[in-house]
Amino acid sequence: MNDDELREHLDSAVDLLARAAPIALQYFREPIEVENKGGDTYFDPVTRADREVEEFLRAELSRRFPGYAILGEEGGEQAGDPALAAAEEVSGKNSALAARAAGRFSKLRWVIDPIDGTRAYISGVPAWGILLGLQDGADCLLGVMQQPYTGETFFASRGQGAWLRRQGEARQMRSCANTRIKDAVLYSTHPEMFAEQSAAAAYRRVAGAVRLTRYGGDCYSYCLLAMGQIDLVIENGLQPYDIVPLIPIIEESGGRVTNLEGGTAERGGFVVAAGNAQLHEAAIELLNGNA
Amino acid sequence: MNDDELREHLDSAVDLLARAAPIALQYFREPIEVENKGGDTYFDPVTRADREVEEFLRAELSRRFPGYAILGEEGGEQAGDPALAAAEEVSGKNSALAARAAGRFSKLRWVIDPIDGTRAYISGVPAWGILLGLQDGADCLLGVMQQPYTGETFFASRGQGAWLRRQGEARQMRSCANTRIKDAVLYSTHPEMFAEQSAAAAYRRVAGAVRLTRYGGDCYSYCLLAMGQIDLVIENGLQPYDIVPLIPIIEESGGRVTNLEGGTAERGGFVVAAGNAQLHEAAIELLNGNA
Repeated sequence: MNDDELREHLDSAVDLLARAAPIALQYFREPIEVENKGGDTYFDPVTRADREVEEFLRAELSRRFPGYAILGEEGGEQAGDPALAAAEEVSGKNSALAARAAGRFSKLRWVIDPIDGTRAYISGVPAWGILLGLQDGADCLLGVMQQPYTGETFFASRGQGAWLRRQGEARQMRSCANTRIKDAVLYSTHPEMFAEQSAAAAYRRVAGAVRLTRYGGDCYSYCLLAMGQIDLVIENGLQPYDIVPLIPIIEESGGRVTNLEGGTAERGGFVVAAGNAQLHEAAIELLNGNA
Repeated sequence: MNDDELREHLDSAVDLLARAAPIALQYFREPIEVENKGGDTYFDPVTRADREVEEFLRAELSRRFPGYAILGEEGGEQAGDPALAAAEEVSGKNSALAARAAGRFSKLRWVIDPIDGTRAYISGVPAWGILLGLQDGADCLLGVMQQPYTGETFFASRGQGAWLRRQGEARQMRSCANTRIKDAVLYSTHPEMFAEQSAAAAYRRVAGAVRLTRYGGDCYSYCLLAMGQIDLVIENGLQPYDIVPLIPIIEESGGRVTNLEGGTAERGGFVVAAGNAQLHEAAIELLNGNA
């Protein structure tokens, strides 16, 4: 995908989330039924806001980008159709071009988290966000996070920087370039993410080394990291849709995000984000007991 | 203090915090030096934002309300001068009235937390607030919480309800009237508030009984409780200025807030706030190991 195409996809994603924002906002801090997806032992809330935002985004993405795959928290995986995408792209052009386009489109996938941080959402805390990302295979091309209550849109695409737009003003975000582990502020959504024994030990080694630990935040924490306000985010048990749209925002601000082994974060699980590469390495070493 | 006087004091407090808001906001998410008041073993941050907001409020309160006592996080206690307050109040009137006024004013105290949640503030999270309350002896007459980034003002005074104003619209807040402990959402600022063994055991008994525990929030949590968005806030190690301005907001919304023993929360320490009296009683029983 060339720069112009990337910019067009980003503009579409930003526009769609701006239109999804009122859907989420209309139920925020209003009486809303909360269902539990987690069964008796675990509270995993979902609301009509989650469902309606995702339905809106799926319908719009299918219409604007026929043939792209879509992964969403509530609706699951919808396979792409390269031929359809290619046909749309080159409609009226020749079939060789269509075949080439089919190859190009075969791995493109939109990733939706309609409300990342549903627990924050139902608690009235504006730390949730609507997430939308675009992947080309394992590569995360662009990502957008929209927080409708504060009116913030965080967005990034490969090679074009990470930005925060609010009240019509856009500001480029840059993560902390120099913070060392002893001065770092570390965020996680909840200590129970590290309930399992080895995860708890790993987390404690980092928590004991930093200046300040804080909880709460969900997707908002990764945007604070991109702004250089905080230095580390470590979380466990993430799903791909929780993190994929945030990867470009983190990386384009100058930060680094991987799994516990230092590999790609796109599959979720145990995720380690840092404002700079040295800090990321220090955190990975501590987490793995090598420091 | 009669209703008209109370309303005038509340209007002054709301107006002062609206004028203090830009002072705090100008340094928010900007590079700002963070000092540590806590020494080597404990990180207790303070910034010029804390100091400048408090200086502004002290100067304005001294001018508008001469003779009232002032307690603030950064500047400590400033004793009131009943004679001065009375003289101002009845200037031009007779001395018997002055003497009566002196009695009335002898216990009035403004309570300031210039930035409640400095850790959130320096992390870029809009869960901090500027707090201002007015006490008559042990009684909390009114309280205001201002969150400049989200543009929210939460305020309450005795007998006049609890309100949230944003973008020119005021909405009366009502806490959850019926939530039971098994369905409750419990907030605390940080698990380390309960590091001490007996506090940890007490907290765990409640945390194990509710539907959802969350961390992060500072003063914002108590306002969410007043809105009926969350049901319980339990915190430890609070100072009087952390809680006094929030007591009227909690109580006027229909909630209840006390210390661990069920006595007044105005001295801080271990604080238990709930959206209704039954839930509060259930939490107190669990905390004290009686349930």
